[in-house]
Amino acid sequence: MTLRARVEEWLVKPSTQQAITAVILFNAVLLGMETSPTIMGAIGGLVTTLDALCLAVFVVEILLKLYARGLRFFRSGWSVFDFVIIGISITPGAQGFSVLRALRILRVLRIISVAPSLRRVVEGFVRAVPGMGSVFLLMAVIFYIGSVMATKLFGGSFPDWFGTIGHSAYSLFQIMTLESWSMGIVRPVMQQYPYAWAFFVPFIMVTTFAVVNLLVGLIVNSMQEAHNEEASEKTDEYREEVIGRLEVIERLLKERSSKD
Amino acid sequence: MTLRARVEEWLVKPSTQQAITAVILFNAVLLGMETSPTIMGAIGGLVTTLDALCLAVFVVEILLKLYARGLRFFRSGWSVFDFVIIGISITPGAQGFSVLRALRILRVLRIISVAPSLRRVVEGFVRAVPGMGSVFLLMAVIFYIGSVMATKLFGGSFPDWFGTIGHSAYSLFQIMTLESWSMGIVRPVMQQYPYAWAFFVPFIMVTTFAVVNLLVGLIVNSMQEAHNEEASEKTDEYREEVIGRLEVIERLLKERSSKD
Amino acid sequence: MTLRARVEEWLVKPSTQQAITAVILFNAVLLGMETSPTIMGAIGGLVTTLDALCLAVFVVEILLKLYARGLRFFRSGWSVFDFVIIGISITPGAQGFSVLRALRILRVLRIISVAPSLRRVVEGFVRAVPGMGSVFLLMAVIFYIGSVMATKLFGGSFPDWFGTIGHSAYSLFQIMTLESWSMGIVRPVMQQYPYAWAFFVPFIMVTTFAVVNLLVGLIVNSMQEAHNEEASEKTDEYREEVIGRLEVIERLLKERSSKD
Amino acid sequence: MTLRARVEEWLVKPSTQQAITAVILFNAVLLGMETSPTIMGAIGGLVTTLDALCLAVFVVEILLKLYARGLRFFRSGWSVFDFVIIGISITPGAQGFSVLRALRILRVLRIISVAPSLRRVVEGFVRAVPGMGSVFLLMAVIFYIGSVMATKLFGGSFPDWFGTIGHSAYSLFQIMTLESWSMGIVRPVMQQYPYAWAFFVPFIMVTTFAVVNLLVGLIVNSMQEAHNEEASEKTDEYREEVIGRLEVIERLLKERSSKD
Repeated sequence: MTLRARVEEWLVKPSTQQAITAVILFNAVLLGMETSPTIMGAIGGLVTTLDALCLAVFVVEILLKLYARGLRFFRSGWSVFDFVIIGISITPGAQGFSVLRALRILRVLRIISVAPSLRRVVEGFVRAVPGMGSVFLLMAVIFYIGSVMATKLFGGSFPDWFGTIGHSAYSLFQIMTLESWSMGIVRPVMQQYPYAWAFFVPFIMVTTFAVVNLLVGLIVNSMQEAHNEEASEKTDEYREEVIGRLEVIERLLKERSSKD
Repeated sequence: MTLRARVEEWLVKPSTQQAITAVILFNAVLLGMETSPTIMGAIGGLVTTLDALCLAVFVVEILLKLYARGLRFFRSGWSVFDFVIIGISITPGAQGFSVLRALRILRVLRIISVAPSLRRVVEGFVRAVPGMGSVFLLMAVIFYIGSVMATKLFGGSFPDWFGTIGHSAYSLFQIMTLESWSMGIVRPVMQQYPYAWAFFVPFIMVTTFAVVNLLVGLIVNSMQEAHNEEASEKTDEYREEVIGRLEVIERLLKERSSKD
Repeated sequence: MTLRARVEEWLVKPSTQQAITAVILFNAVLLGMETSPTIMGAIGGLVTTLDALCLAVFVVEILLKLYARGLRFFRSGWSVFDFVIIGISITPGAQGFSVLRALRILRVLRIISVAPSLRRVVEGFVRAVPGMGSVFLLMAVIFYIGSVMATKLFGGSFPDWFGTIGHSAYSLFQIMTLESWSMGIVRPVMQQYPYAWAFFVPFIMVTTFAVVNLLVGLIVNSMQEAHNEEASEKTDEYREEVIGRLEVIERLLKERSSKD
Repeated sequence: MTLRARVEEWLVKPSTQQAITAVILFNAVLLGMETSPTIMGAIGGLVTTLDALCLAVFVVEILLKLYARGLRFFRSGWSVFDFVIIGISITPGAQGFSVLRALRILRVLRIISVAPSLRRVVEGFVRAVPGMGSVFLLMAVIFYIGSVMATKLFGGSFPDWFGTIGHSAYSLFQIMTLESWSMGIVRPVMQQYPYAWAFFVPFIMVTTFAVVNLLVGLIVNSMQEAHNEEASEKTDEYREEVIGRLEVIERLLKERSSKD
């Protein structure tokens, strides 16, 4: 067995996986502690050191995987996922920008790639996305048209909400979620443009109807998958038996016919 | 081949369709640019010219289609859809009224009639509507009754919300979407009419229940369609085979019986 | 044919039904007009007279039905429904109290008992209710317990929201609909009782989960009904044919066996 | 029959069960009365005494059950449920802390363990939970990561909403329910951090998608259960008959073949 194969074997061993899981959970606690000024005031140095240690473990794990698998490493979506997450954490500037520092907590997402049950859920989510592609595209078209129209119609008087296409898209997203759409946005707009409801009410109806259709599509797909998986097996067995027995009967009868 | 047939052939060619799609997308970007004062200040003339060019392309396309198909053109819902959208854009007053100018962005909707996947989604939406007709009618009745009642009961004290049937209908739509229904509307109303909840809470229950039934209807229909499409084929094949074999067996047996 | 039978026949004739429908719709318009001070100022007398005429038509229709059907009239839920609605309109005090006057618009609900498609929708709604009985009962228990607890815990400091069981029940209904639950209610309460979330967040989770289960129950029931109605017929036919043919084959074989 | 068996028999007798149900309902009314200062001012002593009597009945019932069933008592989830609820009510400090006093109303929950229809609903809810375990775990991961990030990014400027991990988790729960997410939280945050939407909008999308998947899972499971229960029986009968008859036919034919 080559060294590569041995490293691979060691990496996928249950005990290694459990150790990695433990380090991820421990790191999650550490990163949580970092948000507390009290804890950081008392044992900040320790927390930072342990966090660096955890990161070192992850970096070593990734390097070992890269060594063991070579370029095959990048064929697995989950490996790439881990690679990007760790990559963010060790970006040089990461200590300088608060946003990059905050992104380090994304490391906890690695728990998903390690725990099979979470992996399956996420894989289920991702599998559901392509089926919703057309509806998403349609919603993007509706949002773009809605944003341009809202900007042209109401942008002048309400720059905070509809000043640019970006502002309008955000406001329309808020309206689609039905959050304060009337009291917060449409009623004030109607003070100035009394017919604004003729834009917003159809927008709400169309977008919520599209969202409902996404939901319906999801349900129907899941149902079908579940239905096929389970019902088919038993039914197929039964059908094969029926056809099998009918063939036997037919053959027996034909043999007799030819004998006569 | 007549000229008409040749024009038709040219219109439905994939490369023509792709070119039209490209023009629609390019026009969408132009119409988006028009919302930005900065861009319009710098290259406003160019954007306006290009936009007029795009419009010209669409007009020519429609005219060619009209020539090629004659009155058959109006038999396709999607052709009428394109015709109306382009019609709005070239309405003479379109440069005068800001609303009509804003409606020009609707041209981007043509992407739906051009892209088959979007077309299917919208056709699916439209097919779902008739099945919901009765529930919609019922909701219209409930809204009309609710609006008249709310206007009579609360219109005097809250003219902004319930002053006319129109205002009431809008407020009840807001309440149905559950947006600020209590803190924004019903609690203030209850300050003056303590039993107002006896009107609004049942209204919320009835309308949300009706909406839920729309959703349930959609799910059941989609399910049934999906179920029939896929399950039937295989089952039908199996059933035909079983019946076929049984007929053979019966015939063989009857032949022997008659022979004896 | 007795007079009673002739009256009955006349009542259920399509033309009579259509006339009643027309009167209901005309009355709906009149009742809508009554909400407009401008219209009432101009032709108020005419509207009131026509409204009284419509009511007279309804009263005569009900009396004829009572004559034709006798006590059987009250066996149909829809007849009782019409009876109550018309009864409210002719209650003596109806001209005195604004609430009773507002209830006259409920007459428009008669459109439901007249139009078969609306009738079916409402009958579908009513049929769905018993299946949800247990979940409703459970929600009533949860609301009662929640209201008593909220009144005891927060009633002293927030009498407007949780002063009595009734106030608490209303506030909890608002919270269940997720309307302003946090910004409007729970955050202010948490200013004084920092652990209030430990009451409200589980309440939201439990009640929304119960509502979701109502929805799931509705979907599953509708599905099953739809499934049974349609799939069974074709399947039953096929199954009968298979069993029939198998019986013939078996009989033929047994006859031969006994002949030998 | 031993005394234990006789006590058990008496406990499960319908009349005993009905009496207990009556006491629970009567106690519910009493506990409701306790929230009204008017009633307590007039007959507070009576209410308190009757409440103590009801509690005594429950305690005796539990003690009898413990006597009759011994340690087997704790094997039933519902018995433990009753035990904990009554235990809370007789905790010594219960008269001192208002929270513990408020928890006494939980006694009304015993109606669930007594009424079979409510019991089934709750058992259905509890059965549905394990199937949602992975999605819940995933949401816990997302909430933890989201809370840490929000605390680090926005905690400094908005301590009330994102000051600690706990505050952030509560705010994110509010945002997931879509309550005032934009007008109440994200727009103010965006005043200071213009790109805050890049954190919150994806958070909303991911969490609502996860919630939708919970719903879809529930529907598919309920459907499958319902489907299996009902469809299988009839289908199984039919299939058995077909196979049975085919076996008879085959046997008859084989006998003849061997005879020849």
